[in-house]
Amino acid sequence: MRKEIIKVGLLGMGTVGSGVLKILEMNREQVKNRAGAAIEVKKILVRDLHKKRPVNIDRQQLTTDPRDILHDPEIDVVVEVIGGTGDSRRYIEEALRHKKFVVTANKDLMATAGTDLLLLAREHNRNIYYEASVGGGIPLIRPLKHSLGANRIIRLLGIINGTTNYILTKMSMEKMEFETALAEAQARGFAEQDPSSDLEGKDAAYKLCILAMLAFNCHVRFEDIYVQGISGISKRDVFYAGELGFAIKLLAIGEEMEKGLALKVHPALIPLDHPLASVYYENNALFVVGNAVGETMFYGLGAGALPTGSSVVADLIDVARNINHQVENGVMETDFQAKSVVPIDELPSAFYLRLQAVDQPGVFARLATAFGDARVSLDMILQKRSVGGMAEIVLVTHAVEEKSFNLALETIKSSPVIKKINSVLRVIEK
Amino acid sequence: MRKEIIKVGLLGMGTVGSGVLKILEMNREQVKNRAGAAIEVKKILVRDLHKKRPVNIDRQQLTTDPRDILHDPEIDVVVEVIGGTGDSRRYIEEALRHKKFVVTANKDLMATAGTDLLLLAREHNRNIYYEASVGGGIPLIRPLKHSLGANRIIRLLGIINGTTNYILTKMSMEKMEFETALAEAQARGFAEQDPSSDLEGKDAAYKLCILAMLAFNCHVRFEDIYVQGISGISKRDVFYAGELGFAIKLLAIGEEMEKGLALKVHPALIPLDHPLASVYYENNALFVVGNAVGETMFYGLGAGALPTGSSVVADLIDVARNINHQVENGVMETDFQAKSVVPIDELPSAFYLRLQAVDQPGVFARLATAFGDARVSLDMILQKRSVGGMAEIVLVTHAVEEKSFNLALETIKSSPVIKKINSVLRVIEK
Repeated sequence: MRKEIIKVGLLGMGTVGSGVLKILEMNREQVKNRAGAAIEVKKILVRDLHKKRPVNIDRQQLTTDPRDILHDPEIDVVVEVIGGTGDSRRYIEEALRHKKFVVTANKDLMATAGTDLLLLAREHNRNIYYEASVGGGIPLIRPLKHSLGANRIIRLLGIINGTTNYILTKMSMEKMEFETALAEAQARGFAEQDPSSDLEGKDAAYKLCILAMLAFNCHVRFEDIYVQGISGISKRDVFYAGELGFAIKLLAIGEEMEKGLALKVHPALIPLDHPLASVYYENNALFVVGNAVGETMFYGLGAGALPTGSSVVADLIDVARNINHQVENGVMETDFQAKSVVPIDELPSAFYLRLQAVDQPGVFARLATAFGDARVSLDMILQKRSVGGMAEIVLVTHAVEEKSFNLALETIKSSPVIKKINSVLRVIEK
Repeated sequence: MRKEIIKVGLLGMGTVGSGVLKILEMNREQVKNRAGAAIEVKKILVRDLHKKRPVNIDRQQLTTDPRDILHDPEIDVVVEVIGGTGDSRRYIEEALRHKKFVVTANKDLMATAGTDLLLLAREHNRNIYYEASVGGGIPLIRPLKHSLGANRIIRLLGIINGTTNYILTKMSMEKMEFETALAEAQARGFAEQDPSSDLEGKDAAYKLCILAMLAFNCHVRFEDIYVQGISGISKRDVFYAGELGFAIKLLAIGEEMEKGLALKVHPALIPLDHPLASVYYENNALFVVGNAVGETMFYGLGAGALPTGSSVVADLIDVARNINHQVENGVMETDFQAKSVVPIDELPSAFYLRLQAVDQPGVFARLATAFGDARVSLDMILQKRSVGGMAEIVLVTHAVEEKSFNLALETIKSSPVIKKINSVLRVIEK
């Protein structure tokens, strides 16, 4: 029964697909030793048979007909690296129905249909492996499922979008404005020509769906996540944050509280001595707090052919071992519970506020009264010498329910001595 | 055949043992869901039946006779948290012979006898799980075995001793001298009354044995590791390192080079923007470079009852799942290769050197000549205004073979204008 060769069908041959092929070639012996069997890519689904490829492959391996993979009884595992939620989903479903194991790097699909697909896999006594769907090469899925399996996860805090982290790092280290940093990220290939999904936080929110599903053992809907991007951040905010002892990062946050789950993606000030504050450029990291392990963090490259391929091949090794151990599914993440999500208004947060006020007596008293009336207490205040009769004031509050802060903010906005609210950002206290 | 309850025998009930019991109690449901079976501690080996325990247990569970555990056919898994290499080793061997799975948190034993025990386990178609033996709660063993399984590991760089990291953090953040920081670490429970094994780097070297065994797939002898501790470091070195853009950390380093393995534990200057530079206080982290994944890092608490217990219980969950999947060993790390270790003299390193020289013309020329003659090139030079006719000079070299640096150092030492070599430290360039 033991298979000497595990045969793989590869759906798609873009960046990640090529990375997978390259790793299987360059680390062939190592992969074979770890997997206990050779891993052989039998067929590759492509759109164009004649396109030039960055990897040496036999033309005979290529096909444009998915049935050559999905209906081939010799193929044990289907690796889906097409992306999107259309064809890829149909192919994965068909693969499971044909009793194939599935490895996917598809973030969008696992975020929107992950729970359904995992249940379908269980029905067919198979499993879906998706380490590559979040965090590129960084082991995140396996640690949440296995290494931290003895923990109730209290909190996830992640820098899981490389584009925005690159931009924010440039703004901080080289004192660039947002637009300049974005242009450089695009020039260096760290941002796409249409970077909106990254900048607006959507990409991070999809990844949070997957991580929160695993950490909190429930189905997470993208629509339930509060999402705010980084385009409103100016280099002045990055500068003030630094003066106050913080870095600004786009964070994906998941937290299990008594009244439900907090799920949000937004830029935030994070203390400089927090491990996430030192995650620079295109790197990603997930900070996890468990009720036994305490604080732990996983760091590395969140994208790229070889890092992402590294996760796909790790999954292939697991599949090969499971096939030869006759472990058919080993699914453990389908016993999902229903959990409610707390609206953003009711979540606690500390806030950073930068505003322009007329430089005259009583201004600070008005601010203080507005906050006091809404029962918001202040943690830090920064005011530099005023220029042209206008004072720039920066405040950091202690944590309050967001609606209390918003109440104070409304009062402040309507005050005649406040000329402009420049920015409002959330603050991670610790 | 499926077991609803997996029965555990616990050898030892100190800090880690109590942590395991506490986690099994506080996360009972979660552990059961993940393991697919209830995990029940049937018997606990202790030395004193009547000692007061920090965890609620039934006196009936306690025994002073190891055979009550090792010979009990109902017990599936033996968890060894006694420590040391005497009884613990005999018990583990006996457990394997009685076809029990073994989970251990024993660093010393896995470092000195790990390969033998793993081979014995394979002989008996069983496995040893040892996630808790290195890095407390941080997942390190599993990522190296599984998540990064598709990679050839190029380099390990670890802060894997909490005591020394706590001391070095205090010296840096609070400008303490070594002795003061050590006293505080002892007062706060981060250093033992006899801290020599930690301070001299031995503890880190034992852990490096285990990590290097896994990463480079070979037996690593403690004696082959170059070990140097931190007691020679003064706050002046920490200060100069900071001025030059470095932190000082005690690092465990494993590297696979063409001519063999580099294995060493020593304090080193590491650039401030390196992720390891921001690992503060008692935290640990392992930085791993793989040929596919690139740079990745795992961070968290390297010790403590609950963090270490978190790793033990994660292993128990794996064992339970494997028992019910009839996976008997799943061993993958016994196919060890013979690899040579390169002597420290022949390893390349950059160096930091602090010395006192007579403040007179020509001193620098002599230094430069000594380095030039040994073909050592200089990267950074720092000299502050001299005091009392003596100048303090700090130099950082580019990487050279250690013997070349030592040659230059001998010449410098014998020069009449050099009054004292204060410190010599290695530098991690990137």
